[in-house]
Amino acid sequence: MRATVMYEAGDVRVEDVPDATISEPTDALLRVTRACICGSDLWPYKTMEPDEAGARMGHEFIGVIEDVGSEVTDFERGDVVVAPFFYSDGTCDFCGDGLHTSCYQGGIWGREGVDGGQGEAVRVPHADGTLVKLPVEVDDALMPSLLTLSDVFATGHHAAVSARVGEGDTVAVVGDGAVGLCGVIAAKRLGAEQIIILGRHADRTDLAQEFGATDVVPERGREATERVRELTGGQGAHRVLECVGLEAAFDTALRIARPGGAIGRVGVPQFDHLPGAGLGFFNNVTISGGVAPARAYIPELLPEVLEGRFEPGRVLDTEVGLDDVPDGYRQMDERESIKVLVKP
Amino acid sequence: MRATVMYEAGDVRVEDVPDATISEPTDALLRVTRACICGSDLWPYKTMEPDEAGARMGHEFIGVIEDVGSEVTDFERGDVVVAPFFYSDGTCDFCGDGLHTSCYQGGIWGREGVDGGQGEAVRVPHADGTLVKLPVEVDDALMPSLLTLSDVFATGHHAAVSARVGEGDTVAVVGDGAVGLCGVIAAKRLGAEQIIILGRHADRTDLAQEFGATDVVPERGREATERVRELTGGQGAHRVLECVGLEAAFDTALRIARPGGAIGRVGVPQFDHLPGAGLGFFNNVTISGGVAPARAYIPELLPEVLEGRFEPGRVLDTEVGLDDVPDGYRQMDERESIKVLVKP
Repeated sequence: MRATVMYEAGDVRVEDVPDATISEPTDALLRVTRACICGSDLWPYKTMEPDEAGARMGHEFIGVIEDVGSEVTDFERGDVVVAPFFYSDGTCDFCGDGLHTSCYQGGIWGREGVDGGQGEAVRVPHADGTLVKLPVEVDDALMPSLLTLSDVFATGHHAAVSARVGEGDTVAVVGDGAVGLCGVIAAKRLGAEQIIILGRHADRTDLAQEFGATDVVPERGREATERVRELTGGQGAHRVLECVGLEAAFDTALRIARPGGAIGRVGVPQFDHLPGAGLGFFNNVTISGGVAPARAYIPELLPEVLEGRFEPGRVLDTEVGLDDVPDGYRQMDERESIKVLVKP
Repeated sequence: MRATVMYEAGDVRVEDVPDATISEPTDALLRVTRACICGSDLWPYKTMEPDEAGARMGHEFIGVIEDVGSEVTDFERGDVVVAPFFYSDGTCDFCGDGLHTSCYQGGIWGREGVDGGQGEAVRVPHADGTLVKLPVEVDDALMPSLLTLSDVFATGHHAAVSARVGEGDTVAVVGDGAVGLCGVIAAKRLGAEQIIILGRHADRTDLAQEFGATDVVPERGREATERVRELTGGQGAHRVLECVGLEAAFDTALRIARPGGAIGRVGVPQFDHLPGAGLGFFNNVTISGGVAPARAYIPELLPEVLEGRFEPGRVLDTEVGLDDVPDGYRQMDERESIKVLVKP
């Protein structure tokens, strides 16, 4: 079958790989009908050291079940399903806590003999624990929004939940990528009154405003801090969603947080130490969040997406076929596209 | 009057200073009847650069009102009161939120023309917002425990609240100083089932066990992490109270936290960056806490201390007169004493 493999920074190829097959009785075999390129795929796209074996790519996908192992009980051939970006058994203590990303048997797509989502098919480990059935046809118009449940909408939601967004809050969203934009939707959904998006790309911040952002701050660093303070009566934002993953973004998040407030961080950290140990301490700012347990959130978010209450799929502003995935990476890297949908 | 002044690391003196007097209509004049030396006083005792002006010391005290300014309505001469370690006006947005340590008009004792608590008397700014009346005589046997409301018990409680300790939780307490020991009391009070104290001083960990600790881990670093994992079925502690303030202690706190768990940090950070940006992210560990809004907690904790339900005052294992305060610093610094009570 054909699938996406990355060999080093800037070198992404679509090539023949071994066919996905059932190998464990808890597996399902999925034909991928929609996938994405993720902002987090851009980190290796910028920095990956050469690796002759290559890395299979893609962790956000929807597909149709082709076959299931003997122990899979919840799915059958023909089911349309969405996969969260982390597979999990659904039965361990952590899955029980709704923290599927810490599942003992869980893992990330594309590693350790597991297929990536940017390809024709995927072997899904622990299918019963991992997948969620979608009550729609395979080409439903809602597909882009449903696809965001696999990662970016669930991740934006995790940022908002982790920052404890509630009714009437002032929320600042650091980052105008797909996750930040979904964070705006999530913050509004949870009752935020004022939503400040920090971002410099007008097409994205325009979309943020359509999603519910009330203010746009294109400044960075100290100027951004001052601007957010102005917009919040000098106090800062109750809740800050850090949707970038760079040290400077975290630093800004900390500086614009209201004393007693909270940061929900979902940008995969590209740094080792969190700045501002003292500032956060004296301001009693809570730092929460992390890798989003998308699987836990899908049952809550899915019905509302099906009702069309939100359109997170609008962040998928570009569509490519499988052979054009490398160009999709380029478009995202050069910010021609917010996020790329792949239709194998 | 006589009061404690620090001039540089290791140089603490009790000497004549200008008498405390009412200067604002919202002030009260307090005769100090009990004070403490704090673990946080040891940081400057170890590191302070020479300062000819000196720094007035002490931020935990109980006393008797001698006089009040014209706008003070809640107190009168003769009232016995406890002062939290941070004064606050009690009326601003942050005080309203219970975050008195972020009060616009608040501050720390001993700075900017405000007296320290290790002396004969103190001018109390914003007396109505700051002080809490104690319904006891000035020499009540409960004085040591009541005194801990000014800082260490309130701070241990803040660690437990920030780490969201609840019924049945496993809690690890990093640090066996007075705050850590009070953290054990606070964790037990909030329903913790298993309480693991990390500390190497048998007299202190013995007291921790009397306060409710179920396990003692004298190891440090990687060995401590492994030991806590063994004690928690391999998962780590739901809640970790970081009561030290050193980078190594925070690092341990992060490593022993269960995925999805939380750290309540109340050790004043002696470092700039929090280690483990990635580990905390992948484990979804929440980092909360900071400088404790003791004033917010006193009304909740005071009745239970008056009932004798807890004896946090047992951490005050040494008593000195005012002239012996310098020796009290030495005793705490050399770990001869857990915490020193000063009786001026």
